[in-house]
Amino acid sequence: MVHFSTSVASLRSSEIRDLMSLANKPNMILFSGGMPDNDLFPLQEVDAIYRRLTAREKQIALQYGPTPGLPQLLDSLSGFLRDKGLPVDTNKLLITTGSLQAINILGHAFIDPGDTILVENPCFIGAISAFRSYQANIVSIPLTPAGIDTEALGRTLDTLEAAPKFLYLTPNFHNPAGTLYHRDTKLRLIELLRDRNIPLIEDDAYSELYFHDEDREHLQTLKSMNPEGLDICYTGSFSKILGPGLRLGWMLVPDEIYRKCELIKQSIDACSPSFTQMIAHKFLESGAYLPYLNRIRAEYKRRAEAMTQLLNAQLPEGCTFTAPRGGFYIWIQLPGGADSTNILKRAIDKGVVFVSGKTFDPHGMRNDRIRLSFCNSSVEKINEGIPLVVESIREELML
Amino acid sequence: MVHFSTSVASLRSSEIRDLMSLANKPNMILFSGGMPDNDLFPLQEVDAIYRRLTAREKQIALQYGPTPGLPQLLDSLSGFLRDKGLPVDTNKLLITTGSLQAINILGHAFIDPGDTILVENPCFIGAISAFRSYQANIVSIPLTPAGIDTEALGRTLDTLEAAPKFLYLTPNFHNPAGTLYHRDTKLRLIELLRDRNIPLIEDDAYSELYFHDEDREHLQTLKSMNPEGLDICYTGSFSKILGPGLRLGWMLVPDEIYRKCELIKQSIDACSPSFTQMIAHKFLESGAYLPYLNRIRAEYKRRAEAMTQLLNAQLPEGCTFTAPRGGFYIWIQLPGGADSTNILKRAIDKGVVFVSGKTFDPHGMRNDRIRLSFCNSSVEKINEGIPLVVESIREELML
Repeated sequence: MVHFSTSVASLRSSEIRDLMSLANKPNMILFSGGMPDNDLFPLQEVDAIYRRLTAREKQIALQYGPTPGLPQLLDSLSGFLRDKGLPVDTNKLLITTGSLQAINILGHAFIDPGDTILVENPCFIGAISAFRSYQANIVSIPLTPAGIDTEALGRTLDTLEAAPKFLYLTPNFHNPAGTLYHRDTKLRLIELLRDRNIPLIEDDAYSELYFHDEDREHLQTLKSMNPEGLDICYTGSFSKILGPGLRLGWMLVPDEIYRKCELIKQSIDACSPSFTQMIAHKFLESGAYLPYLNRIRAEYKRRAEAMTQLLNAQLPEGCTFTAPRGGFYIWIQLPGGADSTNILKRAIDKGVVFVSGKTFDPHGMRNDRIRLSFCNSSVEKINEGIPLVVESIREELML
Repeated sequence: MVHFSTSVASLRSSEIRDLMSLANKPNMILFSGGMPDNDLFPLQEVDAIYRRLTAREKQIALQYGPTPGLPQLLDSLSGFLRDKGLPVDTNKLLITTGSLQAINILGHAFIDPGDTILVENPCFIGAISAFRSYQANIVSIPLTPAGIDTEALGRTLDTLEAAPKFLYLTPNFHNPAGTLYHRDTKLRLIELLRDRNIPLIEDDAYSELYFHDEDREHLQTLKSMNPEGLDICYTGSFSKILGPGLRLGWMLVPDEIYRKCELIKQSIDACSPSFTQMIAHKFLESGAYLPYLNRIRAEYKRRAEAMTQLLNAQLPEGCTFTAPRGGFYIWIQLPGGADSTNILKRAIDKGVVFVSGKTFDPHGMRNDRIRLSFCNSSVEKINEGIPLVVESIREELML
């Protein structure tokens, strides 16, 4: 008999993974994954980057790098973030092995077993797992179409016995909800948290994937608003703008938090892959990301619109969703009492798969919602798959 | 004021990092790093691998992979490990982001704050940091030239109040001590641990870097001896046989432990970089590693012999070391009372750097030893640098 640690004894495989094995059939239409489409990766750009690498750069790519990141990438990424208005000169940048690692490290930095932390409901499953692995007491705040419910947040802050260790949220194109926080919600949040000594973790993995230039105002990150009296730990990722297979993300955080996080990072994997850091650096430095982002924004927008249109036309009454303005996801609210796991099972039988709502409930309970990803399927596949999803919903609702 | 978690509050930067910044001068001779020499990386092999990748393989390289690892790599790595006699069919393989991550995940799987674990003294600094980050109570057992002191281990096991959560060790070409465990020590260890319900973490990052074919008998891993009544968690790495910049390692563990570790891995970084996994897979599959390993074994042997010869000729009386039979390191025992940090400071002034002994003492105390790496310097640099190290020792000992 092996004696595992307390934190790990409680970790469980999620429903999504168990069901995915059922869904692993050929020709299955996948509205499940939060990954970019293979066909949209910038293969030519990466080839060109590799071809131009010098022998010296290849040596650097094969060697250990400094824990904070390759200096070259820290430099080019600083430029990229500065262009987004982020305070790179008064904060410190740490390259991480995907932005999930950034979130995990922040969890480790703040959470003692039993500590309360605040998240949105629904919430990114990776963050839930990371925080749970440090035995956090997770308290969740509902998400509205304009962002986190600030009234509910205010009430929770007033009633909690011990101050929460942090608040984790994804204001831009939320996973799974697709929500883009309204600018007013962001301002109200800052006001609510000011001088409360509760750091904010702002997960910004999706903000480059906006479909409408006029949304830029709402896309401004909390971190770039640079509010006084509030520590913001900003995390981002190369997964959605270059490729998740690089496993590269980052955190931009105040100096004191940075110093702890760098030590944790050092004890986890010493440094992120130099090989992929070199490629990401060249991708930024060469400017190749600019036309590439325009290309994928247009394509994801096309897919989102196709899916939105079909859902608007076909979803039965009582099912609601907000048309996405960016990101990867559509989040459908089912009529009261509906169970998305039952719908998912029917859908898998019909050859289409998505993710059930309770996967994203920090408490693993609420299941009357559905996440559809439009990122990973062509418009043709969307046209083929959405009627099957709708059919599964109708059958389950006995309509 | 930010409230960090208890585990993180106690993490400290190591002396080695503080001093390294002093040592960051041009032309410094580096006997400090445990990294391969840039000039020995298989650049041509990696170029050939990249050139031959299909578009489909490049897409896989840029995409998320399964948490356990790319199936292709799991397959080729299984073959590689099977050839080393490892029980890949009765255990499970998990690809990790460097073998440090494998060690960290095992730490997370077993350690609750205050739990006792056993390590060798001296011990790999990365493992110390990882275990400390989970607030382990670290108890250390001395290392002898034939391996861990099994008598001391037996006494410790008999006297500890609570059973330790695991024993961590590096039997083949230890970091920092260079030690290759004698086969008898390995057999005695198995006997000692049998049916005690204390898992063994066997860190095998260096076993491919042997200098003498006749050592193969002693190199057999504990894991491949497949002892009954003992759970062995075997960890390995691509860092020393291809390049640390890939950030790829693995663990081969019993099924029950695997299941927990996979969940932890999922919460840390979801998966290891597909990009570098694809390259590592092709490196193994093509057989390119075989001539490459022969090439670097010969070169590291040449360097080890050069350093050994000089030290034998020049070290003052009272300084002892065991000539390395593989790996990267020479570990010098100084006469009683000598302080290696003082020697290091003198050495840095002279233009050469190594790592002080206390860096590898799990208790951060014992400082009468020195680690010299021969992996990262040419024979010319070794000829230039060793006299400066010896001079620094002589000065400090006032000889």
